[in-house]
This record gives sequence, structure tokens and C-alpha cells, in this order.
Amino acid sequence: MDVKLIVDEVRITPILISDPPLLNVQGVHQPATPRLVVEVVTTGGVSGLGETYGDAVYLDIARPLAEALPGRSVADVNGLFALADTAGPASPALPVDEGVDAGGLRGVRTADKLRLSVVSAFETACLDALGKTLGLPVHALLGGKVRDTVEYSAYLFYRWAAHPGADTRTDDWGPALDPAGIVAQARRFDRLYGFHSFKLKGGVFPPEQEIAAVRALAEAFPGRPLRLDPNGAWSVETSLAVARELGDVLEYLEDPASGTGAMAEIAARTDVPLATNMCVTTFEEVPEAFAKGAVRIVLCDHHYWGGLHRTRELAALCRTYGVGLSMHSNTHLGISLAAMTQVAATLPELHHACDTHYPWQTEDVVTTRPVFRDGRLAVTDTPGLGVDLDRAALAALHRRWLDDDGTLRDRDDAAAMRRATPDWTPTKW
Amino acid sequence: MDVKLIVDEVRITPILISDPPLLNVQGVHQPATPRLVVEVVTTGGVSGLGETYGDAVYLDIARPLAEALPGRSVADVNGLFALADTAGPASPALPVDEGVDAGGLRGVRTADKLRLSVVSAFETACLDALGKTLGLPVHALLGGKVRDTVEYSAYLFYRWAAHPGADTRTDDWGPALDPAGIVAQARRFDRLYGFHSFKLKGGVFPPEQEIAAVRALAEAFPGRPLRLDPNGAWSVETSLAVARELGDVLEYLEDPASGTGAMAEIAARTDVPLATNMCVTTFEEVPEAFAKGAVRIVLCDHHYWGGLHRTRELAALCRTYGVGLSMHSNTHLGISLAAMTQVAATLPELHHACDTHYPWQTEDVVTTRPVFRDGRLAVTDTPGLGVDLDRAALAALHRRWLDDDGTLRDRDDAAAMRRATPDWTPTKW
Repeated sequence: MDVKLIVDEVRITPILISDPPLLNVQGVHQPATPRLVVEVVTTGGVSGLGETYGDAVYLDIARPLAEALPGRSVADVNGLFALADTAGPASPALPVDEGVDAGGLRGVRTADKLRLSVVSAFETACLDALGKTLGLPVHALLGGKVRDTVEYSAYLFYRWAAHPGADTRTDDWGPALDPAGIVAQARRFDRLYGFHSFKLKGGVFPPEQEIAAVRALAEAFPGRPLRLDPNGAWSVETSLAVARELGDVLEYLEDPASGTGAMAEIAARTDVPLATNMCVTTFEEVPEAFAKGAVRIVLCDHHYWGGLHRTRELAALCRTYGVGLSMHSNTHLGISLAAMTQVAATLPELHHACDTHYPWQTEDVVTTRPVFRDGRLAVTDTPGLGVDLDRAALAALHRRWLDDDGTLRDRDDAAAMRRATPDWTPTKW
Repeated sequence: MDVKLIVDEVRITPILISDPPLLNVQGVHQPATPRLVVEVVTTGGVSGLGETYGDAVYLDIARPLAEALPGRSVADVNGLFALADTAGPASPALPVDEGVDAGGLRGVRTADKLRLSVVSAFETACLDALGKTLGLPVHALLGGKVRDTVEYSAYLFYRWAAHPGADTRTDDWGPALDPAGIVAQARRFDRLYGFHSFKLKGGVFPPEQEIAAVRALAEAFPGRPLRLDPNGAWSVETSLAVARELGDVLEYLEDPASGTGAMAEIAARTDVPLATNMCVTTFEEVPEAFAKGAVRIVLCDHHYWGGLHRTRELAALCRTYGVGLSMHSNTHLGISLAAMTQVAATLPELHHACDTHYPWQTEDVVTTRPVFRDGRLAVTDTPGLGVDLDRAALAALHRRWLDDDGTLRDRDDAAAMRRATPDWTPTKW
């Protein structure tokens, strides 16, 4: 094996990045969200980048994996899974339950899924380093792109102007708490980035209000693909009622209710396509959901599916079973956006615009922010992921993490909400 | 994209390679079998090799694809599928039916599957050229090997000493037409190559005789994994009777009966694992077979699954659904054996020794024949597939194809059998 490809050093840097006060069923985004940046440096002096969730439980898995990696080839990404199994902590530092991840709305939380989320960042970093060394873009390491641009969707949120208790606003978007506010937000996204599709994060207000917001979007943007995602906040009957109300304008309804059983029941009683980023987030969950016809579209998140190769495997599963594919997004930076774009470019079966949370992020650790044009990102042929690390920005965001008293190091949208409303609990409709 | 990676020239060479008089339910192998060798030459002067089935119907698809390839990057293997769709003949030259491929025992025969079989050779050739250019083995282009050797199984056949009407024997193996002959053949395979597992191609004699042969193998090689494959020649009841007789010594029973329905019925009534290379040979066939529990092991053939990336996708499907994976083999040369070994090395879920027909082949187009030791092939880290083309050998085997009057250019085991027994038809038990 080429000696230039051997991992010489691995750096893992937890950071906190600013997040606006975006609302969802679990609460409100904290003023900052933890992310983890992984750098893999080869003996050839090339540095590869990866990014994933940065809560403490991920760091506990990342540290031993980072220690175990030197001496291995960056081309050896298939071996990362077994390495994470053997190098990882005997038991996760935080209790792992079978419920929904409290802060992340990321579906089931299992030890295996946490490990895959960490592996994904190492895999991305290795592929970035491999591509840079070989002079090939990451998509070429995945068999090559089948499109030159990747379409993304505007990600609309109900939101406040400022975080609870914050002295100042962190951005100039202002509040969006009713149909007019959502339409105004959509118009700005449309103007700034040309997004064609719109997704509204729901589960915040009673369904009638969210139906009204989607109706307002449909009137403001006739014929555009619209999506509504209440993160499983509704009952089966409520979900069906919303589907009846909005069936004529929805591209799909995302996770109206929690769990494969409820989703299957809804799917059996409506023609509105159902998408998920919650009841199918691991390979283990696929067979039951597909057998029951619970979802027509899986929203893949390469982080918790275990990386870019695994994303392609999920795409093959979806193709085989006639299930659609798109991409989920959570608070993330330009490294992950580049990874998403590179792998999305290789998937012929990607027939829906991908979600991206990125436009809400005002900070980044890459030197050049990618630019959405006509709602699309160009698929770069620059070697690796095509992004460079801004070390000063990384250091500043790591400093914020170091200075934090622990409040923000684990994402907890409910805790953030309780700073505004102490007795707040999630509402289900 | 690196200019060195652009395809400058593509050469496709149909050949006929000697095959021994091996018996199966469809007849007997012809004295020579058609194969197609694909060479992709880059602007950097690197030549990549691929190999697939060589019957006329494959050549008709390969020719326009070969013409369409120059100017594209060898890294762009994902694009080969769409290219084959658009470049290929509007309709296959030979009628495509939904039945079993007459000569090849290759499962359903659809236009899509024929196209994938051809694409596989071009994909392999592109990956070989890419790896050679980059200085990386093909396994590294697939995410890296997870093992240093790949285990293969001895492939035992009932056979004659010579082809019908042939003046001379083509090899010194002699006949094998009863249990003693099969055990002798197994002993020689064991001595020459150290194979640990043994697969017997059945469907040739009444089941009692084949049961006796497997029993004789079990006595001669206690504890070794044994497999029996009658290529769908048995009824459900016969299959169940064989399973009862041999359940204590079989690793698995391969395609005892034809069709997913029959396989599922057998699977429901026996604990003997069923494997297939016939009822699941395309992604389209997977959902029904998995839902019905028709097979516990899929024997992948990278040729008709569409190449090495697609083989990895099938492996992911099998992993997700808890189905085992191994590899099928038909008459092939060292190029395909190298491709099989490279992709097999990347699959953690490969828990059964792969089939290989290779030891029966006395001719090859690679300069150095791979050597089985302890039933295994070492996974080379030589750039590309790790094989070199013997141009004199290729020319000689192509000359044989040119000189053939058409008798052998399409594999037809039944026609070969009828040269010995004019009124011969396949028997089902």
C-alpha cells in the first residue's frame, strides 16, 4: 500500500456553533449546537476532513477511534466499522435508550447507531484525504457522479427573533410564528438561494395553524413541492386529517406520527406519500418498515447511516424495494454539506431535493462557504471534498466549547425551551 | 478530471476457451465456452481488463458500449449503466425469454440482466485501469479489503473422460460417474489446492445416486462443508427427501427446485439452509424471495449483478435482511477470478467459501495463473486487479472463436449432450 496514504495523526475537535432559535416539537434550538470536526493527516502530509454530531456520547466513541487509526491506510474505510467496535468504549458513557434522541430528533438511539455516526466522520475524513492524495474528488471514489448539481430544499422553521434570555438577536431573520411569517421566510430563501422546494418543520403549533401555513405557501408558490414535518407529533387520526387537508399540495408528509406501526397505518389510509427520518434511521429498521409499506421515501443522513459508502448501500436498498430516497439534515457545517453533495451526486435514484439546514448556520470552519444557486449546489471536481479548513475559525469555535459550562455541550432543545417556559413539555396532537 | 484517466480506446475480444466434459441437468459443457475480454486503454497508456460471458447476445450489447466509452473517465463507473441503456441495441439481437438461460443455468434471462452482465466487464476494466493509474488495488477502490485471503470451494462435477466424438481427452482427470469417482476427484482437488469445502454439481443422476456421492464425500472428509446443487432439477418433495437424507452433512442445498415459490415451500419444511444462484439473480427478484424466506444464502455472480459495486450493494441487502452471501461461478478465466477475489475481500458478511470453476480451466489469458493454497487465494495489493494480459494467448483463443463455424459461439449444453445422445432431454426428479 502506498506509504503516502498511511494515517500519521488524527485530530478531533469538539466545537459549538451558533444556531438560531428554531422551534420544533422537542423545544427550541439552543444558542449553540455541538459538532465534532475530525482531521486525518497522512504521512504524505495531506489532511482530510470529517464532521459529525458533537455531543459527549459521540466524543467518547471518537477519542479511542482517533487513537486507533494511525498506521492504517486512509483507503481502508471498510475496516473502520470493526475498528470502532474494538477500539470503542466497552459501554457508552451515557445510557443509551431505545427512545428518540432527546435533542436531535434522530430516531432510535442505539450504541451501534452512535458508533456509526462517529465512523461516518472518520470515513469522510479518510475519503477526503484519499481523494486529495490521488487528485480525485470524493464522488470519483464512490464510482463517479451522475449529475453536475445537487438540488436542495429550503428548510422553513417557526422561530423566534432571539433566544430566550439573549440580549441580542443572532441574525436578522426575525420571528416566524404564523403563515405570513413562514411565507416571508420562504420568499427570502427563494430570493437568496433560489430554492424550488420548501419544507416546513412542524409539530410546533396545533395542526390547523400549520395547515394554514402550508396553504399560504401553496398560494404564494403555486406548483412548488411542499413538505411538512412535525417529527412524529401527531396521532394517526390527526395525521390522516392533515393529509386530507393538504393532499393536493404536499410532495410528501414527513414523520407525521411516531413509529413504524403508526406510519404504516397512515400510509394504508392515504395517498399522500410518507417520508421518514425517524422510523427508518438504521439498517435494522428497514425490513419491517418496507414490509409494512410504512414509508415511500427514506431521508438518509450519512452521519447516522455510517458514512458515504453506507449511504450508497441504503440507496441500493431503496432502489430494490421501490422506495424513494432523499436526504435529511440537522445543524451542520460546510464539511458535511460537501460530503452530502458528493455522495448525492453519485445516486441516480435521488428524485427529491435534499434537506439542508446549512443556510441557518452563520458560522463555518471551511474557508469558503458553498453557494446555492437555483436551489442547487455544483458538484465540485476539486480533489477530496473540495473544502479547506479555516483553522482560526475552528480554534474560535473550539474555544467556545471549552468555555461552555456544560449547558450547551449536549444538544437539548427541551432544556432550551424551559429557559423560556419552565414547565414546558412537548405537545402531541 | 485527471486527463490520464480518460478512455482512449476500448478493445473487445470474443474468445473460446477449452472446457472439460462436465455434466449438469442441462447437458454437458461444450468443448469450448465463449467468453468476452474487455480492454480499456486510457490516455495515460494504462490498460484495464474485464471479462464476461461471450455468447452472441452479450457481444451485441458490448459493441456499442465499447464505441460509446472513449472520452469518458475510467473513474466514472456509476455512469456505465445509463450509458449501456442509451448506447445499447434498441432490442437485443436474440429473443430474450423469461425462462432459464439454456446453456448457462444463470436464472432468468432479461434484457436488463444481459446488459448488466456486459456492464460488469466494462466496470471491472475501468476499475483495473483506475487502480493501475493510481497505484491502488481494486479492493482499495471499493473501500478496502477486510481479509487477506479469500476462501474458495472445490467444484466437483460428474464428468466424462472426453467430449462426445472427441478423438482425445482434453485433460487427465478421467471420468467421474459414481460416488467413488466423485471422491477421487475431491481428493485430487484437496491435494492440489487444499480446498476445505466441496460442492457437487448434481441434477445429473437420480437423487439416490447423488445422495450416495455426498455420503461418500462425508465419509472421506468428515466435518468438511458439503454442498449439493442440482440446478432446480427436483420437485419440492424430492428436495425435501434429499434434505432429510443429507441434513446432517450439508452446509447448504443449492437450488434444489426451480422458482422462488418452490424454494420457499422447501425452506418452510426443512432446517437445511437453501442457497440460490437461480431464483435470485437480479435485484428485482430479491424482495419476493426475501419476504417468502425462500433462501438463506445468495450466491452472487458479479457478472450478472452488474459488477463489483453492485456486488457490494447486494451484500448490503443480504446483511440488512439477515441472508447469507457467497459467490457463484461459471466457466471463467483469471481476470474474473481476480475481480471475484478483490470484491470478496471487501465483504465482511461473506461467511461461506466462494465457488470457482477456475481449476477446470486449462487455458487463460493472464500471464500468471493464480494459485490456490489451503483452498484460498491471497488478496493482492498489486495495483488494479493484479493480473496482466497474455496477448499471444488472447490472440490464439480469439482465433479459435474466429475459426468456429458457429457451433460453440453460444453455449448450449443440451446441444452438446445431443451429440452423444440425439434424443436427450433434461430429466426432472
